[in-house]
Amino acid sequence: MDFSLTDDQVAFRQTARQFAQKELKPNAAEWDRNSHFPIDIIKKSGELGFLGLYTNPEYDGLGLPRLDSAMVFEELAWGDTAVAAYMSIHNMAAWMIGEYGSDTLCKKYLPNMVSGEWLGSYCLTEPNAGSDAASLRTKAEKQGEHYVLNGEKTFISGAGSTDVLVVMARTGSAGPKGVSAFVVDANSAGIEYGKNEHKMGWKAQPTRTISFKDVKVPVENLIGEEGQGFRIAMKGLDGGRINIGICAVGTAQAALETATSYVQERSQFGSPIASLQSVQFKLADMLTQTIAARQMLYLAADKVDNNDGQASTYCAMAKRLSTDLCFDVANEALQLHGGYGYLNEYPLERHVRDLRVHQILEGTNEIMRVIISRQVLQDEGLNQLR
Amino acid sequence: MDFSLTDDQVAFRQTARQFAQKELKPNAAEWDRNSHFPIDIIKKSGELGFLGLYTNPEYDGLGLPRLDSAMVFEELAWGDTAVAAYMSIHNMAAWMIGEYGSDTLCKKYLPNMVSGEWLGSYCLTEPNAGSDAASLRTKAEKQGEHYVLNGEKTFISGAGSTDVLVVMARTGSAGPKGVSAFVVDANSAGIEYGKNEHKMGWKAQPTRTISFKDVKVPVENLIGEEGQGFRIAMKGLDGGRINIGICAVGTAQAALETATSYVQERSQFGSPIASLQSVQFKLADMLTQTIAARQMLYLAADKVDNNDGQASTYCAMAKRLSTDLCFDVANEALQLHGGYGYLNEYPLERHVRDLRVHQILEGTNEIMRVIISRQVLQDEGLNQLR
Amino acid sequence: MDFSLTDDQVAFRQTARQFAQKELKPNAAEWDRNSHFPIDIIKKSGELGFLGLYTNPEYDGLGLPRLDSAMVFEELAWGDTAVAAYMSIHNMAAWMIGEYGSDTLCKKYLPNMVSGEWLGSYCLTEPNAGSDAASLRTKAEKQGEHYVLNGEKTFISGAGSTDVLVVMARTGSAGPKGVSAFVVDANSAGIEYGKNEHKMGWKAQPTRTISFKDVKVPVENLIGEEGQGFRIAMKGLDGGRINIGICAVGTAQAALETATSYVQERSQFGSPIASLQSVQFKLADMLTQTIAARQMLYLAADKVDNNDGQASTYCAMAKRLSTDLCFDVANEALQLHGGYGYLNEYPLERHVRDLRVHQILEGTNEIMRVIISRQVLQDEGLNQLR
Amino acid sequence: MDFSLTDDQVAFRQTARQFAQKELKPNAAEWDRNSHFPIDIIKKSGELGFLGLYTNPEYDGLGLPRLDSAMVFEELAWGDTAVAAYMSIHNMAAWMIGEYGSDTLCKKYLPNMVSGEWLGSYCLTEPNAGSDAASLRTKAEKQGEHYVLNGEKTFISGAGSTDVLVVMARTGSAGPKGVSAFVVDANSAGIEYGKNEHKMGWKAQPTRTISFKDVKVPVENLIGEEGQGFRIAMKGLDGGRINIGICAVGTAQAALETATSYVQERSQFGSPIASLQSVQFKLADMLTQTIAARQMLYLAADKVDNNDGQASTYCAMAKRLSTDLCFDVANEALQLHGGYGYLNEYPLERHVRDLRVHQILEGTNEIMRVIISRQVLQDEGLNQLR
Repeated sequence: MDFSLTDDQVAFRQTARQFAQKELKPNAAEWDRNSHFPIDIIKKSGELGFLGLYTNPEYDGLGLPRLDSAMVFEELAWGDTAVAAYMSIHNMAAWMIGEYGSDTLCKKYLPNMVSGEWLGSYCLTEPNAGSDAASLRTKAEKQGEHYVLNGEKTFISGAGSTDVLVVMARTGSAGPKGVSAFVVDANSAGIEYGKNEHKMGWKAQPTRTISFKDVKVPVENLIGEEGQGFRIAMKGLDGGRINIGICAVGTAQAALETATSYVQERSQFGSPIASLQSVQFKLADMLTQTIAARQMLYLAADKVDNNDGQASTYCAMAKRLSTDLCFDVANEALQLHGGYGYLNEYPLERHVRDLRVHQILEGTNEIMRVIISRQVLQDEGLNQLR
Repeated sequence: MDFSLTDDQVAFRQTARQFAQKELKPNAAEWDRNSHFPIDIIKKSGELGFLGLYTNPEYDGLGLPRLDSAMVFEELAWGDTAVAAYMSIHNMAAWMIGEYGSDTLCKKYLPNMVSGEWLGSYCLTEPNAGSDAASLRTKAEKQGEHYVLNGEKTFISGAGSTDVLVVMARTGSAGPKGVSAFVVDANSAGIEYGKNEHKMGWKAQPTRTISFKDVKVPVENLIGEEGQGFRIAMKGLDGGRINIGICAVGTAQAALETATSYVQERSQFGSPIASLQSVQFKLADMLTQTIAARQMLYLAADKVDNNDGQASTYCAMAKRLSTDLCFDVANEALQLHGGYGYLNEYPLERHVRDLRVHQILEGTNEIMRVIISRQVLQDEGLNQLR
Repeated sequence: MDFSLTDDQVAFRQTARQFAQKELKPNAAEWDRNSHFPIDIIKKSGELGFLGLYTNPEYDGLGLPRLDSAMVFEELAWGDTAVAAYMSIHNMAAWMIGEYGSDTLCKKYLPNMVSGEWLGSYCLTEPNAGSDAASLRTKAEKQGEHYVLNGEKTFISGAGSTDVLVVMARTGSAGPKGVSAFVVDANSAGIEYGKNEHKMGWKAQPTRTISFKDVKVPVENLIGEEGQGFRIAMKGLDGGRINIGICAVGTAQAALETATSYVQERSQFGSPIASLQSVQFKLADMLTQTIAARQMLYLAADKVDNNDGQASTYCAMAKRLSTDLCFDVANEALQLHGGYGYLNEYPLERHVRDLRVHQILEGTNEIMRVIISRQVLQDEGLNQLR
Repeated sequence: MDFSLTDDQVAFRQTARQFAQKELKPNAAEWDRNSHFPIDIIKKSGELGFLGLYTNPEYDGLGLPRLDSAMVFEELAWGDTAVAAYMSIHNMAAWMIGEYGSDTLCKKYLPNMVSGEWLGSYCLTEPNAGSDAASLRTKAEKQGEHYVLNGEKTFISGAGSTDVLVVMARTGSAGPKGVSAFVVDANSAGIEYGKNEHKMGWKAQPTRTISFKDVKVPVENLIGEEGQGFRIAMKGLDGGRINIGICAVGTAQAALETATSYVQERSQFGSPIASLQSVQFKLADMLTQTIAARQMLYLAADKVDNNDGQASTYCAMAKRLSTDLCFDVANEALQLHGGYGYLNEYPLERHVRDLRVHQILEGTNEIMRVIISRQVLQDEGLNQLR
């Protein structure tokens, strides 16, 4: 066991921090205010490899471990939570193609996705099946050289502004084994996009419903084989949960830094409020929570990188804990700012609004508990986690 | 001790609920979205007496106890948190004039405030003195028949759209005893309003900074005597804290009702999610918290109504507890809605955004703890609370 | 609605406090250390009416409302949690006889129970049916002039030292409707008592298993009618939950008082630790929690006194909330004492050990949530609680 | 960064688990009940090296890193919290001598301490200086070839049954720089031991006050130099905090394992309670908390092993978080057992009693927050923790 960072990790982290410092942080408030999706900046990050962090290097990806990638996402989220979170979803989509797709498929999509030419969306959730992914209803019927897709997807990050959709659809019978994964061109005939949802936060990325009406997808765009879609989607989610968690950590770190400065500047009753013990204790707990969250995510990332049999459980624990702790950190940071924390001029209320969805998406924190408890209660369940 | 409602209380509560049901609830989402301050609707509530609930009946007020008034505010907040909270602030301003002002002053302002002709704002907080009210810098210098006001007030609810300002300003030496309270016409020469603050919530009421530059205020507009201002402001805040608390309760009740319906309609894995024990337990705790919050506020209101020597402590306890508990209730209700809770189409994210400021304003919850602990630690402190 | 105490309430509270101050508090530590059940002191309290607080006055009881009785129990628990809690159980047993028993039965048992001549135990729980009372297996078969009891009861407070057992046993088919309630002489042939359980706390009252082997009970000792037992037991529990809750409040009050003194005496780094803001804030929250807990119990007691249709829900909410809050209060009081809090020389660790069981017995706090959520989810459930 | 265990770590962990399984776990309940300090078993653990885990190998210690040692302590605490915690204190004492003592001193004491011939106690705390160690009053005056000690130490683990005392005493002026550390033979003339304190838990190790009256200590028994004592004591505490934390983790792990079995065996309303979602979610959170606590401690141990400049902050964070989380885990495990959790026949109530002191000793969790916040608020404080 070794907790020191490799030189690579230090370097990637630094590059990401610089990018975030220069391109994201100064604009985050405005993008939030205007619900602006900064496609140009996102594409620009492709130059640094951030759009193919753990994509196969054969197709231009950096091929980094999840652990190293997590460090990059943390820094990006330190600059802008919503943008970083979208970028992590793009990475998840690219990874799924690169990991399970045919060489043809990879060549067709990945270089352009990694460079930022094309942005991707991950399309799993449906209106009547939030966390119950296995019951999805979007259909893909094979007709000659095409699959024909019909159905509706909801809460799709980036939708309407992206180019490539990774879509889970049913090719077979009910249940998880009837699901397949497809790459779909976002401008295919028969695709319609709903309105940009008015969300509490994550305003710097659009979220839309997508409806598929007789959308033709070439058979070569099937990722892996028929029936593998659910497994692929779930594998993708393991990493996705790490990313959602680590983006929460980056945001919490930003909130903590902002609050730490503020309490040293802000005076009340004649002294900086940093001299109040209740303020000091809050800061102490905020730091502790941020570090604990980060460590759990690093641990989970390491388990994914090592194909540990319990990786999914570790990801679920890390996602649950980190998103809860980091929401609290941001929320306490807001409180430390008093009335100013409630104003959009300060970043705190945005951090709170942004982080609120991290407790919900990529599987709600309640679903995380279902996953974890299933492991606890199975034979030798606890021993497998030692 | 008797926990049953009087016929009056039942009647007022019902009238308020009907008004909220008809005029507020259907519009709350849109007002929030458009940052619209519904002056017409607020004025209309004057017909029911809601703009002078505990104002002296001699000047057209209803003269209700705080307890009964709290029940009204709860129902109004059930319909729209931000509007109800503003109305409670207007009531506080009217009460201060009616309670401490001269007959002349009362006649000059109250009938129009009670009818809704004129709306009021309460101007205490300054940029560099959040909770540290005694250190305020706005000056009022007596020059012949006028006081001349100079200074700046911040976080003023309703500012820019209201007609009457109750302003705390320094007429004497440093500290609380140098402060006096004034009624100021909102359109007096020398008053300038800042921009409508972009807040996390409470969007249906404007919040602005007000600057006073050589603003002339007739001497008759002094409330009470010179040097009484701080005491008057604090008395006002006791009731104000009950109101802020009970508006949180009304909102929590709305969130709980919405969530209770939702979990019975929403199915996952083949059953309504209301059949999940974790959902049931959440609802149980949400109800318990809402009722506990309400009871503490009723108790505090009763103490104010009875001029109990510890009324301020009870108000501080009730405000602290209720706003914390009710924020949690709304936040859990959001979580029970999963991704839908994050969308503005559902009221939950608005409830969370609105309630967040209740933990901060009228004295942060940290200041409440300062007030409470001071009582605990004084001689016989605990015995006085039995 | 009126929160002032009646003269009676003030008087009873004062009498109880005096009794607790004189007879209980000075001995509580030693009784805990020696697992001594102070029967003589308990009997002595009969002179004050504390063994028949809400027993029918026709049979010598005081016939007080639950609300007034709760105030008495709170003061007793302030002196000794375990003894007060036992006394509340004795009162519950006496009440069940007085409320549902025949005149003959009442005359046979109540005067002696109220005077303290005979102490009572409440026998519901069985080894394999903790909270699932309806599945109980103890059998009562009618044979001529007797019922013959067979079975086993567990966690019986006072068992082995009491004279009268109120026993729930099955006279009919499975389920709650097959259960009847009996008064059983504690020294009847065929009764055997297990060892005094080694418990975490509540050491000043014995807890034993009772086994019934062909125990003959005269038919006249049936309380009410056959099949009413479960309903009677549940009615008893409503009040029992208030009592368990209010005993937690009395203990929390004691812990808070002790801690408040301690922090003013104990110095560290040159000042009393009461000058530390984190200590002040803890005290503030402890007081707030104690008062909130008390109010919820008063409300529930009032609902029981008024035969409110939702009384059981209110009792469940009050028991859940109060026992959780008060455990935390005691636990924080311990922490404020540092290492001394861990020593038996100080009362804190005893308070914590004693209160831990209040979250468990008379229905675990999880069962309380089951009860509450059932109400929330039924038609008009929330409206019935306004 | 690498989260896999070395072969050594796996081996030590396994050896420790076997020892705990065989020698500690079967006896822990009885030792607790009888306040028995199992000296023989502790000495026996010396054969495995557990009494000199990170003592210099030159003097027979194993010279393990803190990280590896932590893994051993965790397993021991899984078997018996109080005994493991004592053993960690013995190790701390031995380490202080080995790290800072002269070769003569090391040779005089360490081989016998490592073998278990002599057990050690760590004597820092005084009656009037809990966490305020720098203000200690015990005096050591140099008189020729001896220091003469006068003063009183309190809360001394093992006192009365140990052979070697590491004592912090004042040789110079007020403040931390006037403190020196000594090795004192436990049976020296002038030493008197107080009664074995009646504690809430940790009953399997004695805790006593020690008074020193003109106790002669050879000058060679000074550890390091005069004036270094406070720094040495604090260094010792860094590791001590890891140990106290990791013993909490081992206990939490035991509680979680016990609860996981119990809920699968215990039926209510016809099914094992493991089928209840609220139970499942509790288990999920208990596991998550246990793992998060463990990771924070591993991280802190690694920082100590690498002489990281922020090691003390990491130790403080890890101690605070782990002891809070693990207390909660044990407490929830108790609750999952219902009434049985309250009985001494089950280990849960013992776990809760034992863990309660981990939040207090080696610096209360409030002192931990003081340490952490000091780092947060210093220049570049947060950056040093990235």
